[in-house]
Amino acid sequence: MAKKHILIVPGDGIGQEVTAVGKKVLDKIAARFNHEFTYDEALIGHVAIEATGDPLPAESLEKMRNSDAVLFGAVGHPKYDNDPSAKVRPEQGLLKMRKELGLYANLRPIKLFDELLGASSIKPEILKGADILFFRELTGDIYFGEKGRKNNGDTAYDVAEYSRYEVQRIGRKAFDAARTRRKKLVSVDKANVLESSRLWREEIQKLALEYPDIEVEYQFVDATAMILIKEPTRFDVVVTANLFGDILTDEASQIAGSMGMLASASIGDGTGVYEPIHGSAHDITGKGLANPMASVLSAALLLDISFGMKEESEAIISAIDQVLKKGFRTRDIADKTTDSSMILGTDAIGEEILK
Amino acid sequence: MAKKHILIVPGDGIGQEVTAVGKKVLDKIAARFNHEFTYDEALIGHVAIEATGDPLPAESLEKMRNSDAVLFGAVGHPKYDNDPSAKVRPEQGLLKMRKELGLYANLRPIKLFDELLGASSIKPEILKGADILFFRELTGDIYFGEKGRKNNGDTAYDVAEYSRYEVQRIGRKAFDAARTRRKKLVSVDKANVLESSRLWREEIQKLALEYPDIEVEYQFVDATAMILIKEPTRFDVVVTANLFGDILTDEASQIAGSMGMLASASIGDGTGVYEPIHGSAHDITGKGLANPMASVLSAALLLDISFGMKEESEAIISAIDQVLKKGFRTRDIADKTTDSSMILGTDAIGEEILK
Ligand SMILES: CC(C)[C@H](C(=O)O)[C@@H](O)C(=O)O
Ligand SMILES: CC(C)[C@H](C(=O)O)[C@@H](O)C(=O)O
Repeated sequence: MAKKHILIVPGDGIGQEVTAVGKKVLDKIAARFNHEFTYDEALIGHVAIEATGDPLPAESLEKMRNSDAVLFGAVGHPKYDNDPSAKVRPEQGLLKMRKELGLYANLRPIKLFDELLGASSIKPEILKGADILFFRELTGDIYFGEKGRKNNGDTAYDVAEYSRYEVQRIGRKAFDAARTRRKKLVSVDKANVLESSRLWREEIQKLALEYPDIEVEYQFVDATAMILIKEPTRFDVVVTANLFGDILTDEASQIAGSMGMLASASIGDGTGVYEPIHGSAHDITGKGLANPMASVLSAALLLDISFGMKEESEAIISAIDQVLKKGFRTRDIADKTTDSSMILGTDAIGEEILK
Repeated sequence: MAKKHILIVPGDGIGQEVTAVGKKVLDKIAARFNHEFTYDEALIGHVAIEATGDPLPAESLEKMRNSDAVLFGAVGHPKYDNDPSAKVRPEQGLLKMRKELGLYANLRPIKLFDELLGASSIKPEILKGADILFFRELTGDIYFGEKGRKNNGDTAYDVAEYSRYEVQRIGRKAFDAARTRRKKLVSVDKANVLESSRLWREEIQKLALEYPDIEVEYQFVDATAMILIKEPTRFDVVVTANLFGDILTDEASQIAGSMGMLASASIGDGTGVYEPIHGSAHDITGKGLANPMASVLSAALLLDISFGMKEESEAIISAIDQVLKKGFRTRDIADKTTDSSMILGTDAIGEEILK
């Protein structure tokens, strides 16, 4: 029996709906495995701007620092997307949280549940056996470099930057993970054009000397974007920079059938943050249509990585597996053969998982 | 009957083999349509470094400026990829050519030949009807901003930059093209994080006011990377920045079955350059295995765009269509059902196209 304090940070859009399901599942786990989980909530993103003017209020950050783990939803709102000159934006809250908590490693496991082999737009025979673990660097690159306007506002710029230390620490995590898996690492960069990618490659090459048991391949990001679809089984662990990781993992979500199935863990110096890789999806917000499984799987990652609760984590994954085996689907993972009575909304499929 | 001077720039790796086929096809067109095409050759990339020390010798650039169009192969060599600290690199030749010739618009049409519907790793029912025209900006962004090292070499940086004028001119080309097609434009950026993307979006929004007949959608690059695979028929014309275009068009090559089928046109202020989107592919160089169809289709684009020869261009496309209908394939576009006797090498399939 363990005592843990979990902070729930639903954020914007469907973040609210899916995180509610994730929390219920954590509660159920606590009851069944005799743990004591306490909870608190904090604001981030658009809802935080509305309430306080600040996309990441100091109080939220304080609560994050003082919790054992964070279950996160999503941030974003169309209002800001259509107004490129908005000064305060929901995403600033997310980026500040990552930076302040030192969450430099974002793990995105891409694994297909057997039952969903047909749900992807990629052919089942291409997908079969695909199992990829992405390490996306999360606190550097063009996300955090200097940015601004010059020439009387006529030119806009963003600086992409990496230091050796930043590459080493994420690289080491990826090499270590490869050791516990199939011992293959692909490092993705654009070293034929970018100086920051050349430094990235230099550091990965140095680390490779320390891990002679790991087979390392260097790919250019454009080639990776292609090979991910052509031959997804070629990958085991992938390590890459913040921006490339953002693009490639969204693309790779199609390997798992839907973005609605993908969880991620952001870890680093302190509290870990667990979140679906899907965004706020305002087009379906409030309709009860969102797939909560990415949030539930994020809760499973939280238990595994932050609390070392392997059995509890596997109980969740197997619950999802059973729900899928029974034939239940959310809209995003249904296909032509799915009977419409088996297509459930957010809460209903949540109830099935809880059973 | 027209007189035209065409410069052949094969570059590195399979660039040599495929461009030779492209040139033969141009020759055949000249004979059949009674044109007079004269040719010259120029060096670029690794072969130019080997011969002169310079990835784009002044003589090559001069020849490009003085020709009516350039048929280009590829640049690159593994030697430099594995040595991140190399000072002189083949890609510098390519980038300098693009900048010096003012080739700011790179057109990449993604269209599937009916016969290849089964060759892709994406399901045929998802692909059916997909027809996308990418406009990739080609002389700005993080490719051409300041780059270097600082903090005693401990940090590397690259500056991404766009000016309003740069976005306007590529944007206008994309809107104009959408008008001649299905009147839908998707502009891709990362405006929720990047300042250069926000300026990009501002300028596209301004242009949209001038083109009320075009339906414009704004997407974040991570979402686009996902939707391209999930629902490729949703796109008509896509316009995006240099780096995002590099990644997304390689990914989109899977919609057309293989990178070996995709041609591109780089146009701007002066001579147009036409090239396959595949690279130098040193793993298959010299083996006679490369698919020359991307080079042949580049020749077709050259005739259409630089010389206004629509009929000649269509003759080439229909020749390729017939070769595919007869069942001939190169290795990259063969599938399980292809009889091995129908799988031809570079020259042999070239001969079939010439017939
Ligand atoms: C919302 C956005 C800023 C964010 C990112 O680009 O990192 C999101 O796409 C993600 O992947 O977590
Ligand atoms: C070779 C490389 C520099 C080039 C690019 O990134 O532009 C290539 O990938 C391309 O797409 O033409």
